[in-house]
Order: sequence, then C-alpha cells, then structure tokens
Amino acid sequence: MHIYNFWTTQRLRLSAAVVQNKEREPAMAQSTDLTRIGIIGATGYVGVELARILSAHPHFRLTALCSKSYSGKRFSEIYPAFRGIADQTLIEQDFDRLADDCDIVITALPHGVSAETVPQLLDRGLRVLDHSGDFRYRDVSVYEAAYKLQHPRPDLCGQAVYGIPELYRGQIADASLVSNPGCYPTCTILPLVPLLKAGLIESDGLIVDAVSGISGAGRKADVAFSFCESESTFRPYGVTGHRHTSEIEQELSFAAGSPVVISFTPHLAPMKRGMLATIYARPTPGVNQSVIDEALATAYAQEPFVRLLTEGALPDTRNTAGTNFIDIASRLDGHSRLLKIFSALDNLGKGASTQAVQALNRMSGYPETEGLLTAGFAI
Amino acid sequence: MHIYNFWTTQRLRLSAAVVQNKEREPAMAQSTDLTRIGIIGATGYVGVELARILSAHPHFRLTALCSKSYSGKRFSEIYPAFRGIADQTLIEQDFDRLADDCDIVITALPHGVSAETVPQLLDRGLRVLDHSGDFRYRDVSVYEAAYKLQHPRPDLCGQAVYGIPELYRGQIADASLVSNPGCYPTCTILPLVPLLKAGLIESDGLIVDAVSGISGAGRKADVAFSFCESESTFRPYGVTGHRHTSEIEQELSFAAGSPVVISFTPHLAPMKRGMLATIYARPTPGVNQSVIDEALATAYAQEPFVRLLTEGALPDTRNTAGTNFIDIASRLDGHSRLLKIFSALDNLGKGASTQAVQALNRMSGYPETEGLLTAGFAI
Amino acid sequence: MHIYNFWTTQRLRLSAAVVQNKEREPAMAQSTDLTRIGIIGATGYVGVELARILSAHPHFRLTALCSKSYSGKRFSEIYPAFRGIADQTLIEQDFDRLADDCDIVITALPHGVSAETVPQLLDRGLRVLDHSGDFRYRDVSVYEAAYKLQHPRPDLCGQAVYGIPELYRGQIADASLVSNPGCYPTCTILPLVPLLKAGLIESDGLIVDAVSGISGAGRKADVAFSFCESESTFRPYGVTGHRHTSEIEQELSFAAGSPVVISFTPHLAPMKRGMLATIYARPTPGVNQSVIDEALATAYAQEPFVRLLTEGALPDTRNTAGTNFIDIASRLDGHSRLLKIFSALDNLGKGASTQAVQALNRMSGYPETEGLLTAGFAI
Amino acid sequence: MHIYNFWTTQRLRLSAAVVQNKEREPAMAQSTDLTRIGIIGATGYVGVELARILSAHPHFRLTALCSKSYSGKRFSEIYPAFRGIADQTLIEQDFDRLADDCDIVITALPHGVSAETVPQLLDRGLRVLDHSGDFRYRDVSVYEAAYKLQHPRPDLCGQAVYGIPELYRGQIADASLVSNPGCYPTCTILPLVPLLKAGLIESDGLIVDAVSGISGAGRKADVAFSFCESESTFRPYGVTGHRHTSEIEQELSFAAGSPVVISFTPHLAPMKRGMLATIYARPTPGVNQSVIDEALATAYAQEPFVRLLTEGALPDTRNTAGTNFIDIASRLDGHSRLLKIFSALDNLGKGASTQAVQALNRMSGYPETEGLLTAGFAI
Repeated sequence: MHIYNFWTTQRLRLSAAVVQNKEREPAMAQSTDLTRIGIIGATGYVGVELARILSAHPHFRLTALCSKSYSGKRFSEIYPAFRGIADQTLIEQDFDRLADDCDIVITALPHGVSAETVPQLLDRGLRVLDHSGDFRYRDVSVYEAAYKLQHPRPDLCGQAVYGIPELYRGQIADASLVSNPGCYPTCTILPLVPLLKAGLIESDGLIVDAVSGISGAGRKADVAFSFCESESTFRPYGVTGHRHTSEIEQELSFAAGSPVVISFTPHLAPMKRGMLATIYARPTPGVNQSVIDEALATAYAQEPFVRLLTEGALPDTRNTAGTNFIDIASRLDGHSRLLKIFSALDNLGKGASTQAVQALNRMSGYPETEGLLTAGFAI
Repeated sequence: MHIYNFWTTQRLRLSAAVVQNKEREPAMAQSTDLTRIGIIGATGYVGVELARILSAHPHFRLTALCSKSYSGKRFSEIYPAFRGIADQTLIEQDFDRLADDCDIVITALPHGVSAETVPQLLDRGLRVLDHSGDFRYRDVSVYEAAYKLQHPRPDLCGQAVYGIPELYRGQIADASLVSNPGCYPTCTILPLVPLLKAGLIESDGLIVDAVSGISGAGRKADVAFSFCESESTFRPYGVTGHRHTSEIEQELSFAAGSPVVISFTPHLAPMKRGMLATIYARPTPGVNQSVIDEALATAYAQEPFVRLLTEGALPDTRNTAGTNFIDIASRLDGHSRLLKIFSALDNLGKGASTQAVQALNRMSGYPETEGLLTAGFAI
Repeated sequence: MHIYNFWTTQRLRLSAAVVQNKEREPAMAQSTDLTRIGIIGATGYVGVELARILSAHPHFRLTALCSKSYSGKRFSEIYPAFRGIADQTLIEQDFDRLADDCDIVITALPHGVSAETVPQLLDRGLRVLDHSGDFRYRDVSVYEAAYKLQHPRPDLCGQAVYGIPELYRGQIADASLVSNPGCYPTCTILPLVPLLKAGLIESDGLIVDAVSGISGAGRKADVAFSFCESESTFRPYGVTGHRHTSEIEQELSFAAGSPVVISFTPHLAPMKRGMLATIYARPTPGVNQSVIDEALATAYAQEPFVRLLTEGALPDTRNTAGTNFIDIASRLDGHSRLLKIFSALDNLGKGASTQAVQALNRMSGYPETEGLLTAGFAI
Repeated sequence: MHIYNFWTTQRLRLSAAVVQNKEREPAMAQSTDLTRIGIIGATGYVGVELARILSAHPHFRLTALCSKSYSGKRFSEIYPAFRGIADQTLIEQDFDRLADDCDIVITALPHGVSAETVPQLLDRGLRVLDHSGDFRYRDVSVYEAAYKLQHPRPDLCGQAVYGIPELYRGQIADASLVSNPGCYPTCTILPLVPLLKAGLIESDGLIVDAVSGISGAGRKADVAFSFCESESTFRPYGVTGHRHTSEIEQELSFAAGSPVVISFTPHLAPMKRGMLATIYARPTPGVNQSVIDEALATAYAQEPFVRLLTEGALPDTRNTAGTNFIDIASRLDGHSRLLKIFSALDNLGKGASTQAVQALNRMSGYPETEGLLTAGFAI
C-alpha cells in the first residue's frame, strides 16, 4: 500500500522551488531563467528561513541542501512544516557536486568554518553568499581581534562585498563573494549611516542598546534556551566585547569618515524572532527633528524595504517578523538633548535570510524585491 | 518635505496585490486575468490573514477593503505589518460600489449580520464567499436552533455551497455563494468523512476534543483575552452546546448516510494560531490500522493540502501555522480498542482564510494551490 | 574587599529554611519541631519546586541537597532565583551522611534509579518520599510491563503507600515509604474515584484527554523543548502505551472494585506549568448532574486542596499554578449523554512537589495545609 | 445540597490572612499583633499581588478590599486563583468603615484620584500607603508639570515619605503617609544612588534604557495589550516625556547634591512580569570596576533584598519574578569608557506590591523581611 502518494512522488523531484502541484508543472517547466542555489548548513535557523523564502521564489531553485548533522534525511523530517514544500534529501557537503548543480552557494556556517569552506567554492567558480563573520571585515586584524582566530585567507576579505544592498548595491551585482552582515549591524547601520554621512550626529558617544529574539542564539540543545528557562525572561548578554561591535564600527567609520567607537549592549527577549535597537546619539549643533527626518527620507524614501515611520508611530518587532523590512523612527528629546533612534527588523529576515535573498536577487539580475514583498504574520 | 515617498506614491495605487516595485510594474500591467476581490470586515483576524495571502497572490487583486470601525484609515494603520504591502484606505460598506469594483466579495462578519448582507451582494450579481455560520446549514431549522436566530433568507441556504474544496470542489467552481466552514468543523470533518463513508468507524459515540489558539476568539478588547490573563493558561470553554457541534454533525451525517451525534469540547491554548483535534472513534469489527491508513490515503493522497503523516509522526500545530495544510495521523490503540485521530491546522489558515483562498482559486478557475503552497514559519 | 556580604555570611548556615535575616534568627532558633529533609535529585524541576516550598515552610529544614551533575556548586548558581533563599552547596549522594542529617529523604530520580536508591535509604532507617514510578504499583508485574524493567525490590512495593493524601491519608501518616503519584494520575484519579465508588459512571469506556505544560518534560537540553521549537506549539505525544495509563487504571480499579481500562492521551501546550484533564464518562442509568455534584461534594467538601467549581466556572490551569490546588468541574451533556469532567492542577504542584509536601506534613504530624495555603501568581 | 462546603464556611470569616484550615485555627486565634489592612483598588494588578503576599503574611490581616467595579462580588470571582485564599466580598469605598476596620489603608488608584482619596483617610486617623504618583514629589510644581494636574493638597506632599526602605527606612517607620515609588524609579534609583553619592559617576549624561513586562500597562480591555497583539512583540513607548523621568531625577538629584537630568526610554517585552534597566553612565576620572563594586557593596551588602551579582552573573528578570529582590550588576566597558549598570526586579514586586509590604512591615514594627523572603517561580 502506498500512503502519502502525492508528496512521495513529488519528493523525487529535485527542487522544492518547483511548486508541487501538477496543475502548475507545465508553466514551471517553461521557466528559462532559474538560478540554481545550494545551501551549506541548511538546517540551522538561517537555513530554514532561506528555504522558506527560496522555495516560494519565482526565479530561484534549491538544488542542493547540505547538512553535516542530518545528511540522508529529508529536509522536511527536520522541519515538518516543510512537508510538501521542501522534501529534498539533505546531502553531505561535496564541492564538486555543488559546482555541477549550483550557480550560487549560500554558506550558513560557524565563523572559522566559513573561512575554510568559502575558498573551496570560489575556486570551483561558484559565487558565494556567506553568513558568517569571516568575510565582513576590510581590515583582517580587526576580525582576528574580534573573533580570536587567524584568518586563513585574508586575501579574500578585500574581495568580499558587505551585503547590505541599500549601501553596496552596485558592488553586490557583480560580486563573486557577498558577506551577509550580522543582524545587530544591519539594524544599527541602516539608521545611522545617513545621519553620520550628513554630519547630523556626533560620531562619538554613540550608544546602541539592542534586543533580539531567542532564535538569535541559533538551533541549540541548551538548557539556557529551553522553553522553561527562556519564557518570561529578559536578559542582557555579551555586554562587553560583543563581536558585532567592531562590525558596526567599521561601517559607521566609513560613513563618518573617521574612526567611530560605539557602546553596544545586546539583550534577549522572550520571543522567537525580532530585533529592536534603541540608539542614543548627540545631534550636532543646530540640528532639529525635521533635518533628521529629511536626511533619512533622502536616503531611503525610494528603498522598498526601509520604512520610515511617520505620524508618531514607533517600531514594534512584530511588524517586521517574517519580512525583509526594517522600520525606523527617531525622536529628538528636548529634555536630554539626545536623539533617540528606534529600528526594528526580523533577526532572521532583514537581519539574515531575507537580506541574503535581496542580495541574491541583485546578484542574479532580478528585481531586488522579487519574492520578498510580503507581509509577515500580523497575527 | 516629503517623507516616506516610496510608499506614499504606492498608496495612490488602488491595489496592494500589485506588488509595489517599479521594476515589476510592466509585467504586472500585462496581467489580464486578475480577479477583483472585496472584503467586508477586513480588519478582523480572518480579514487580515486574507489580506496577507491575497496581497501576494498572482491572480487576485484587492479592490475594496470595507471596515465599519476604521473606514477612512489606511489598512496599514490598523496593522502596521502591512505598511508598503496594503496601504489602501478602508471604506464604508457600499453595495453599489462593491458591485462596480469587485468580481467576488468576501464577507467576514458576525453571524446574523452576514445573513442580512450577503443577499444584497448576490442581488447585485456579485459572487460571495461568506465566513459566518449563516449559510453553512442545509436544514435551516438546525441553524436556527444552534444560533438562536430566525434566518431572514432561508432560500439561500440551499443554494450555498459548503466551502471545503476536498469535498465540494465541483460545486464550488460555479457557486454564486460559498459558505466557508468553521475551523473546528474543517479540522474534524476532513479526517472523519472518509472513515465514515467507508464504514470503518462506528457513527455513534464519536468524541471530538479540540484545542484552538487564542486568535479563535477574534480581535477583542476583553480582559479575558489580554496578554496577562491569557498567557500560561489552558482552559475549556463552550463545553456543551457549542455551535460548531451541529455543523460537524451535518457533514458527518452526510458521510455516514445516517444521523451522527458527536460530543464536542473546545479548549483554548496560549498561542496565537493553531488548532488540534483529538478524535476518539470505535473501529467497526475487523478494522485494523492499515485499513484506516488506506482509506485516508485513497481519499487524500492526491490532495495537496492534506498531509497524511507517516513514520510515527504526529501533528503539531506549529507545522501548519500560516498555511493551508491540514496534518492528519491516526493510531488504533490496542489497549482501549479506540481509534485516536489527530488533525492539526491553522485556525486562521485552513480553518478560515487560506481555505477561503483555495475556494476562490477554484471559483476563479485558477489552480487551487495558487498562492498557497508556502511553508509557514517553522521558527 | 568583600562583595555580597549579607548573603555570603548566610551561606555558611546549613539551612535555607532558616530564613536569612538576622532579625528573625532568635525566633527560629527556638523552633523545636523542625523536621530535617534531604533531596536527592535537587536540581530537576520537581526538586527546585520542592526547594521553593520547603525553604518557606515553617517546620521543615532542608539539610541536604544532592545533585549528581552539580555537586560542589551552590543551588542558587543553578537557579539564581534562589540567591539569598537557598544558597547551600549541592553535595554528592552519600547515604550515611543523609542518615545523619535527615529525618526524611525525598528522591526525585529517574525510574529504575529510584528502585536502586530507595532501599539504601530505608535500610539506614530513613523515611522516604519517592517521585518515580518505581513504587507506585501494588502489582509488580504491571510495573514491569509498563516500565520494561525488572524490579530489584518487589518486596518494597507492597509496603509503599500511594501518596495522594485525600485517598491514603491514614497510611501516609506512618509510612516509611511514600510513593508520590504521577501528575496525570493525580489529575485523573481525584475526580473519578468518588464517581466510580458511588457507581455513578460506567467503569468501561473512560477517556482521559490530558494536557501538560512543558516542564512536564523535565530539565533537558533538547531541541524539541527549546524555546524556538516549543513556543506556539500544541502537540500530542505518547499517544499509545503511556506509562501513566496503568497507574491511573490501578487506582480506578480499586475504586470501581473491578478492573478498569482507560484510553489515555497526553498533549503538550506551550506554557511552563499546568495540567488539565478533560475526561469523558458514561453516566449510569438515572444519574443526573446534581447526583454527580453531590458525590463530589460529599467526597471533597472538607478537603482544603480540592476546589469544586460552582456557578458555571470551569478550570483554567493558571488558577492552580504554583499551588497545591486541584480545580474540578463537570458537565453532563444532554446532547451526547456523556459526562465531561474537567480537572486542573499544576503539574509541578499538586501533580508533584506540593502534593509531596502535603504528604510530608502528614508524615510529620503537621497540619496538611502547612506551608501550602498560598495563592499562585494570578498574574 | 451544599457544594463547596469547606470554602463556603471559610468565606464567612473576615480575613483571608487567617489561614483556612481548622487544624490551624487555635494557633491563629492566639495572635495578638495582627495589623489590619484595607486596600482601595483591590482588583488591579498591584492589588492582586498585594492580596497574594498579605494573605500569606503572618502579621497582616486583610480586613477590607474595596473595588469600584466589582463591589458585591467575591475577590476570588475576579481572580479564581484565590478561591479558598481570599474569598472576601469586595466592598464599596467607605471611609468611616475603613477607619473602623483598618489600621493602614493601601490606595492603588489612578493618579489624581489618589490625591482626592488619601486626605479623607488621613483625616480619619488612618495611616496610608499610596501607589500613585500623587505624593511622590517634594516639589509640587514638578508633579503638576509631569502629570498635567493641579494638586488639590500640596501640603501633604511634604509630609509623605518616599517608600524605598533602603533609602528612607527611618522616616517610613513613623510615617502617616508613605508614597510607594514607581517601578522604573525603583529599578533605576537603587543602583545609581550610591554611585552618585560617592561621586563615582558623572551626574550628567545618564541614560536609562528600561524594559517592562506587560502587566505594567495594568488590567485593561485594550486590543493593544491583547494576547494576539502583544505576544512576540518588543516595542518602545512613551519615549519622550514619560512621567517617571521626573521622579527618577528627583531622587538622583538628592543623591548627587545637584540637579540631575536623565534620558529615559521605556519598552515593553512580551512577558507578564519583570523589569530590567540598562543604565549608561560615565565614570568620573580614576574610577575602576572595583571602586564601583565596593561602593555598591558598602551601600547594600546588609540589605536583604538587594542582590549584588558576582562571578560574571548578569540580571535576568525571571530571577526576581514574584519576589521583593532587585538584582544588580555593573560592567565598566574599557572600549567605550562607559559604565553599564544592569538592574532587574519584578515590576509588580519590588517595583510595586512587595516593596509596599516591605514598607508596611517597617511601619508596623515587624522585620522588613517578614512574609517576603521567598523564592519566585524559578520555573
């Protein structure tokens, strides 16, 4: 007897991106511009969110899902939400096979591991989008101090493009290696860069107080992140020396034209997804709220994924969950004479996977919004 | 100064379904087969989930969003997750305008109100998909007893098609009025109908113990559903005389060919979305697990949205959240000689809004899966 | 320099039960009736809840907290909520030392391990309250079938008293070994025993559909119980052959005077604590709601921890969280002719730790309510 | 027939503090030092937490629970967790009756209302502990600017004692009017006062970034605080001009000996209880971490409710939930040269109700820790 026939048959097909409905097959077969994507580290939370977005994307096709821990199992065995959506068998990482089957490979690996893996892919002519910290730094010595590692391929760091499309769109288009930014950096850099560039805020004394959902800690068998010991908690962590500090400072320094030192403090809130940064900056003399608003509007009014909130609205993480949006608002506080900037995004979305897809769109010549202009779960 | 220009311009466009990216506009403009959809009661939880699905759907276009409470405001003011996705202005219900602007109107209204509203729409030649209980009954007297109302238009009840495509696909295609089922009924009817039809379970003594996420209570300013008084709660409600009992019994009776009486008990669990039914049935003599499995497989193996779990898996609400899937498993318990059936769906998904879209697809001649074959948030 | 002096000094004191405030010391020193308690397995969730209750109890004193995994650390290092409340150093299990320092030892160990440990304690003259399944069965063969183990000391099973004070109060008083019941059994047995004894419900066809908070899975580094993979889930588990089935049947059979077979199905809801059983029973001929109510009232009206809900109220897990209460309501459903019984308790409270303290009170000659008549967190 | 007899009888007793168990009655009857407490506004979240603590307190007796909305109902009808614990009937506010039945009255009323109510109580010779902002200010004009009200009884402001026992213990003892501080102020003032007094941090440029659980919004029928629209959210609010700013500044100015201006930004996290402040301060020249540690230790090492975390630990809201503890840690960040201070408490505990009980203990001559040295729910 055959149970579950519909999906069983579908499983034989290589790609989850090819939507599993017989009625649609003829149309899909005619697609001529599919870009073939592989993911190494497919079962972590960045990987699963990539699979969600890419399996519904009109132009990408997931041709290889690699997992060290689960090779031989179907992706949907690990994430049963994907039954019927992504039933491919997870495979061992095999660089030659990836070179045959993919146009672009996404690496979602721990730092250090990426530095060893990415060169293998580039050497085989693959384009790579990497999620680790290994290729985010222009100055390797900053990386090595922050990550306490010696970089095996410092030559590649110069060649990697920092993957925020709003800032590096042009270079991303032709890059062989895109280094996707960290979640905290994306949430911090986007609101601050236009203000620093325009000299509207002082470049010293910046304070970034940020909060992440618990998925930021990754997929872990760890009592500290168990339901019973994470629910109803709010807690700071990594309060000095967090690695993202140096990554944020790199980009802010580029914008300011001089070295920027920030104070960065991350926290965890009891929710799966979401990130909110509350940033404190001193406005330069003569700056008022409307000057700030204009600078942000000039920078981002044409950006589809940057939403500048108006009419007194403030960001709330739930409004960006599951999307590539970043929501930004600011308040110049007359009492303390500080500018307070609030920015929210989904740490797995604009902070990781959907931002990667935005870059992949650009790398592949598709509109950047392709597959990404969806509302998250409002409820 | 103009802030938020990108979206401001977009807002002028009538439809959020037309994706807001200039690069895509030419392609969209060529679409000739768009079906125009209006929603009455657009800001309830069924409405917002419809807006999420339909604004990303390739063939539907939201041309009217009606709200009694919020007319004059933009949809995205009420649900800021929709900024840039559905910024249309909410309008008062106006039947003539709806007749001009829509091909199909979805009513997401309280029972009793739908019974008054739907005829107005039908009279103007509109096709209607209704979410209330008002048109779900073939026998008006059952409705009137369950809802304690006199039905103003009993004549329409016979003409309405019960909107489970897996059961009434053919009639839905041409229906002028589709009555979308309740969430509990969908979750219960789909697993039981094939077993009753095949005579594999006794038609008496059926027990349906079901659990819903809190969104099932609707969008309400009510202390009982406040965060502080709903978090960490598990509670039964409506434990005798719940209206869905009679709706379930209607469909099970059709399947069994004789009147079926069930015992139905709903509960609320502390989560936003999700529904799980645990159903207890007595197998008829000689029936074993593989006979049960075969009956379900025969009924549903070709159904894209019914996932029959194998290999020991059991349904978990999170695997269906945000999707149109229903996950089903069963266990014939040798100890108690009862068949336990487990079915899970998203109460706002297959239990309401995505099932509606599945029916709309069928009503409009699109593949039923159009816009619906996506994974929910696995994380 | 000495930081944290107040608590550092307190830590030198052996007992956390002796409240750490100099102002109170003289009074406490006069207490002559302190019973010394040791816990083996102190850092599991049953252990930590015992520590919470016992450290505030007027007559018990925690003199030994044993932990295999964490010996040498302070209890409050593992559970920082206990800083200043229970700062004792966790010790290795040492039977002789326990015999010197304790009057009663509580074992919160996995089944199988308890069976080996408890005899060692009894042999040294200690009284024991055990939390495992090892001593809950009068018929060892039932235990061995359910737990798939050979019992090393079947002789002790007859001597152990099943620790529900409402049923076995007299025997608990003098017992050397009390076997604390499972959470699901307590939640099921208390409402059903009076009805079976009085012959008001049929003893066959009983269905127990039960839901537990996630702490029921214990303190585990397990992805399945991580925050990200447990939040917003509702899921059945162990749906056939769950060990508590046989434990429930044992006690119901005693009440009915004949063998009772039940159908039992556990589920997990996304909350830390709480348990609710929805029980389906067929009333015997002539039984009506008020007969049911009277039987429960007769059995429990004088019981301080059994709350029979009136005026249409139904149990909600949050009303019992952190307490020793069990809330019970029933509804005879005229439609299906079934009696629905709802009972709620805290799986770590009346389902484990506070029920243990109730028994300890009885074993020690204190009022059963001592230290237990507190409201949980309503908010 | 009599259902629920045990508790019905108990309900006749005036006080829930008198534990409802016949076995304990004789002992309780001998208590000669009970202080009689009334609460006006008993059914808000501050009131219910007071009821939880006071009903288990050895020396207080709840003799009057007043509620405008629910008078005539039993307290346990509104909060069923209190069945058997606090079944008193809620009464209308009646000043003469309160004067007869109470020694101290707690007002948990909105600001403005307290200002009208408290004088009536004082005039009748009652001592009062007030939870509103109405009597927290030494300078009435600051109050009137912050609350946008004219104070009806400015004369009483000078007489009120600000109710942080760690700072105003001596005055609280004999006060006729204690004004309980706000939650954010308590969380901010306690860690900063010793550092400002000792001149270890600059008194300008202080930034307080704080997070509260949702119970901080009170008991409300408001969609914004419904489960479905609060779960999985993290959001700033009141980001300029929050009233607690001026209250914090008042106490910090006293400590610094000169006017202090702060930047204060509150947020809501998706949890019921808990508050965490992350405070940024510039150390004065020559100050290092151990100087900071010593100053805090000197101030608080003998304080039972102030826990100075050592060994790298950082505060986590869950460790203080349900208790009167405040947990404090600090880190001097060499990178940014800022001192980061972290303090956590329960917004309903040390931030409101348990701090009130600590003051009541002091007002009544009991040890401050009486009834308060308990661990919260670690799980």
